Parts: sequence; structure tokens; C-alpha cells
Amino acid sequence: MEHDKKMMTSPEILDRYRDIIVTTLKARIDQDSLSVYDMLRYCMGWSDKDGRPVNGVMGKSLRPSLCLFACEAVGGHMKNALPAAASLELIHNFSLIHDEIEDFDETRHHRPTLWALWGINKALVAGNVLRILADRSMEMMKNDEGKNTERVLKGVELLTEACLEMIEGQYMDISFEGRIDITLDQYMAMIARKTGALIRCSLHLGAVMGTENLKTLEIFRKTGRSLGFVFQIRDDILGIWGEEKSTGKPVGIDILRKKNSLPIVHAMVKADKKGRELLREIYSLEYIGEQEVVTVLEIMEQAGTRDYAQGLAHKYEEEALKLFSDAMLPDSYKFHFDVLAHFLAVREY
Amino acid sequence: MEHDKKMMTSPEILDRYRDIIVTTLKARIDQDSLSVYDMLRYCMGWSDKDGRPVNGVMGKSLRPSLCLFACEAVGGHMKNALPAAASLELIHNFSLIHDEIEDFDETRHHRPTLWALWGINKALVAGNVLRILADRSMEMMKNDEGKNTERVLKGVELLTEACLEMIEGQYMDISFEGRIDITLDQYMAMIARKTGALIRCSLHLGAVMGTENLKTLEIFRKTGRSLGFVFQIRDDILGIWGEEKSTGKPVGIDILRKKNSLPIVHAMVKADKKGRELLREIYSLEYIGEQEVVTVLEIMEQAGTRDYAQGLAHKYEEEALKLFSDAMLPDSYKFHFDVLAHFLAVREY
Repeated sequence: MEHDKKMMTSPEILDRYRDIIVTTLKARIDQDSLSVYDMLRYCMGWSDKDGRPVNGVMGKSLRPSLCLFACEAVGGHMKNALPAAASLELIHNFSLIHDEIEDFDETRHHRPTLWALWGINKALVAGNVLRILADRSMEMMKNDEGKNTERVLKGVELLTEACLEMIEGQYMDISFEGRIDITLDQYMAMIARKTGALIRCSLHLGAVMGTENLKTLEIFRKTGRSLGFVFQIRDDILGIWGEEKSTGKPVGIDILRKKNSLPIVHAMVKADKKGRELLREIYSLEYIGEQEVVTVLEIMEQAGTRDYAQGLAHKYEEEALKLFSDAMLPDSYKFHFDVLAHFLAVREY
Repeated sequence: MEHDKKMMTSPEILDRYRDIIVTTLKARIDQDSLSVYDMLRYCMGWSDKDGRPVNGVMGKSLRPSLCLFACEAVGGHMKNALPAAASLELIHNFSLIHDEIEDFDETRHHRPTLWALWGINKALVAGNVLRILADRSMEMMKNDEGKNTERVLKGVELLTEACLEMIEGQYMDISFEGRIDITLDQYMAMIARKTGALIRCSLHLGAVMGTENLKTLEIFRKTGRSLGFVFQIRDDILGIWGEEKSTGKPVGIDILRKKNSLPIVHAMVKADKKGRELLREIYSLEYIGEQEVVTVLEIMEQAGTRDYAQGLAHKYEEEALKLFSDAMLPDSYKFHFDVLAHFLAVREY
């Protein structure tokens, strides 16, 4: 029974706050003065490229959901964490827009990306606008007694540091391109920053908005760190073996793009000598085609790459659950967190 | 005598704070963990592309100098404004890095730009890192009694709004590309944001760090707005008639790049019918060459474009002086501001 609940496609945490998150975000991007705001509404999944409202193309809103959940879990009022939650989603989308430019990604969630529709220059600037709207959202933070400047500033500082880590991670990721000597440790250090920092910050920041208990805050920070690994490792698995109809991206997309994702790094290190040599040869090609993708998949099969990666995702899932249980929260919070962590480890999209 | 002083090549305000600005900025970019920080030190003019220290290639540091000057002028302690001053220069450089990517600018101050040396992806990310270091610098703001969270937050909010205006201005500038129907009003609205907002914020923010007198703050804000126009209009003049040895860019660079700068917008509107038609024809070409630059310069000559633009720069210079004199500051501050405003209106670099 519990196992079934854990396999639900959309965990309660990702559903519970959806409406309030969308409402809050829409209020943050409500300008009509410049067409860049139309681009942002398209980016968020609320309208088509001509500005007509559409439904059902938003992402998971993982980061704001984690933030609001954390705030409630430590006994805070969800509305105190809403500005921070909105900031996290805006920053996440800022990073996606710039990432898509860097990776020449032409689609996200089955739709053309911003740069693909409006060109690189406008997309770059649109990303920067989103980044500033995130700052502005943080500055809107109030508590029940009005604006609590101490808490706002603490939140702003936490988000700044997480953002810096995220960008440093993007830089490391770019620096890995074209290299065939990345170690598993280097890879983990990169994703801890690139994806991990903002997910960690989501849980941490939400808790900061709800409590001043330093021990609790530290637990949320550490739990968030582990959860970030779960998320990114599963993301890397989907980047190799994910179904196009779920992910919106072709099978083996990360191989075609020569990304140094976990499965590749693992296979480069753990495949047999012949496999490693073949892999390095393929990654030295200027372009990788369908045939090479099949070969790489075979090498990974032999090296046990998929099992290794999935095992690592579950290891961090368990670590997150163990850390979270130290916070001594009511069982219902533990249960919902458990469901979410498991979902992140096995999701298909 | 006064006229001679006004013509000094480097005004006191730009010299007085140079050392403390550089020292503060260097402390903000002191990481060695990733090579992106080497890129940033190169960008700031402190090292060559291989990380070796160099001297004498920094910009004017106009924005931090204005910030520190404003703080002192209203009776504040300069050190309270230093973190904000550093932030302004970091944000300015962030905007330059992204601008250079957008405009395909291959040189700044006679040196290759970041993207030209390290590629677009790394340069884009380096710009984002600088942006976050600016946030972090703001958060370091303290006053004599320790961290004054109210004032820090007010400063952070002002800078956020200025930054948003700046990025909106960049977006407007990009949107103008390829158009031949930009009005002078549209042009002024664009530069008020793209360049004006941060220069306005420099004076305003510096004053905020030194006084709580709302009337004084409003004067600094308005003065900064006018000074922003002086700066950008002269910049546009240099973009057409500036000497390569002073500006580091070829004569007529803005024509070659088909920018909608003030002289172009003026000539498009004010040249005689034949001139206007010729201009539109030239701006419709895919590439503009030396011969077309000569033709455009002739049309501008006939339309009185240079006199118009220089007159407008002086009009805003006078407006700035008049506004500033309302602040009832000691004569020495007025004098130095006067010298600076005039320098910005007539500078060759």
C-alpha cells in the first residue's frame, strides 16, 4: 500500500501549492510595457508565442513547492515564504533560459525555447530580466508584523550564495565540454553547485521563513543537499534512457550533445579497456550520430552504468530521508517528503 | 581660469577615489577556485588573458566615483558607500560583458573582449557571476554601528530597480535594431534606462548612504538622471566622430554597426528629403562599408546633427548643474561636480 502511494505520478507536495505558486508568479510578471514580458510569460508556460493564454505546459515547480513545504513543516505561515518561493522559480527559469542558449537547446517541454523563437540577444536579456524580478520578489518579503528586514536580508543573502554556486556550476559544466577525463568526484562537485545549490536553498530558505531554530535549519539545508543529488542523477538517467514522449527530448540526447553527465563519466571510468577506448574515440568526433549513440548505450550496458546511477540516486534518496527524520516533524510531513524524494528518484519526466 | 579648470582631462571626482575603488573591487573578486575569476580580473583590467597582473587599462570608474562623491557631499562617511560603489561598477561590467556578446564587439579599451577570448558561453556565465558578486557586495553594507539592515535593504531595492531599468533599456536597444522609424522621444526613453538608470542610481545610492533627508535624496536622483543623458549623448557623439586612438573604436563604428544612436535618429528625422531617403536605403543594406559611412557623415553634416547632439549634451549638463545647486552644498562640491559634468559633455574617451 505504501509502495503504491510512493509510486504516485504526482506527489502531494508538488500538487498542494500549485495554484498559489502560479498566482504569485503571475503577479510578478504582470508588466505590459515591453514585449520582453510576453517572452517571459511564454517561458513560464502561461501563453503561446503570440501572447495567447495556454494551459498545462508549466514545469513541476519543484523549487517553490519545496520552499513552501519547508516553511509549513517547521510551523511557519506559508504566505511568509511565498515571495522566496516565487524567487526560486524565477531564478530557476533564468538559469534555464541561459542554459538553453549555451547548449543550443531548441525545445523545452515540447515547445521551442526562447532563443529559438526570438534570437539569442533577446533571450539573453529576457533571462536577465527574470533574474531581477527574482531579486525584486525577495525584497517583497514581509512577515505577519510587516517587513522583517533582518529576515529578508538573511533570505536575500542565502539566495545570493546559492545563485553564485549555481552559476559556478554552470561554468564548471561548460568547462567539462570536450573533455574525456572528468572524474566522478569532479562530476559530483559540479552538480552539487549547478542543480544542487538551488534545490538545497529551496528547503533551507523555506525553513528560514518559518523558524529561527538553527538545528532545524541545518537539517533542512543538509536534506536539501541530498535531494539535489537525487534530482540531478535521475535527470542524467533520463538524459540517456528517458522516453521522448515523457521528457520531450530524444533518447540519448546527452550522448548526442556530448554532455559529461553521470552515465558518461561512469562509463568512461568503469567500462572495460575496449569500451573506454571506443568511448573516448566517439567523444572525440566532431559530431555524434544515431549509430554512435547505439554503441555508447552498449558500452554502458556492459559497464552496468544504469544500475550504478540508479543506485546512487536511491542512496541519496535514503540519505535525504534519514536526515529529514532528524527534524522530528509530525509523521504526515515525513510521509509526504518520503513520497516526494522517491518520486524524484524514479520519475519519468 | 575657471574654463581652464573645467577642461582638465581627468576631473578630481574621477581621481580622488580611484585607489580605494580598486582596492575594494579587488577584494570582491579574490577567488581562485575557478578560472572564471581570472576572466573577471581580465575584464576589470587588472590582468592579462593569462592571469598576469597589468596596469592602466581600467575604465573611468565613473559610477563608483559618483556614488562615493554623493555620499561625502551630503555629509556621510565614504566607507559606508563603498560596498554600493563596488556593486555599481560590478553591475556596469556585467552589462558590458553581455552587451559585447549581443553586439559582437571584439574589443574594449583596445583589448579583446571576454567572448572574443573565451567564447560566448563562458563570457555569458562570467557576466552572471559578476552580477552576483554585485549583489553580495551590497549585502556587505554596514554603517558605523554595524549592519544597518533598513538602509541595506533600501539600497538593495534601489539597485534592483535601476538594474531592471538598465536591462529593459538593453531590450529596447535590441528591439530598435533594423528599424528606421525610431523617434527622438523613443531614443531618449531607451537611453534613460539603458545607461541613465545606473548613473542616476550612482548619485542617488551614494546619497542614501549618507543622509536620510528626502529632499536632498530627490535632488541627487534628479541630478543623476540629467547626468546620465550627458554621458550617453556624448557617448553617441564619440560613436560617430570619436578618434580611434582615444575611444579604441574605428570612426563611424555606430554607423558600421547600424546602431540607432542619437545622431542617426536625428539625421533620419531632420535631414532633407533626399538625405533621409539615402539614409534609409543605407540602413536597409545587410552590410555597411566605408563608402556608406562617408555618405552618412555627409548627410549628418548637412542636417546639423553634430551641433544638435552636442547642444543637447550641454543642455542636460546645465540642467544637472542647476538641479545640483538646489542641494545647497558647500561650494567645493558644486565646483567639482561642475567640472565633472562638463568633462562628461566634452570628453574624447
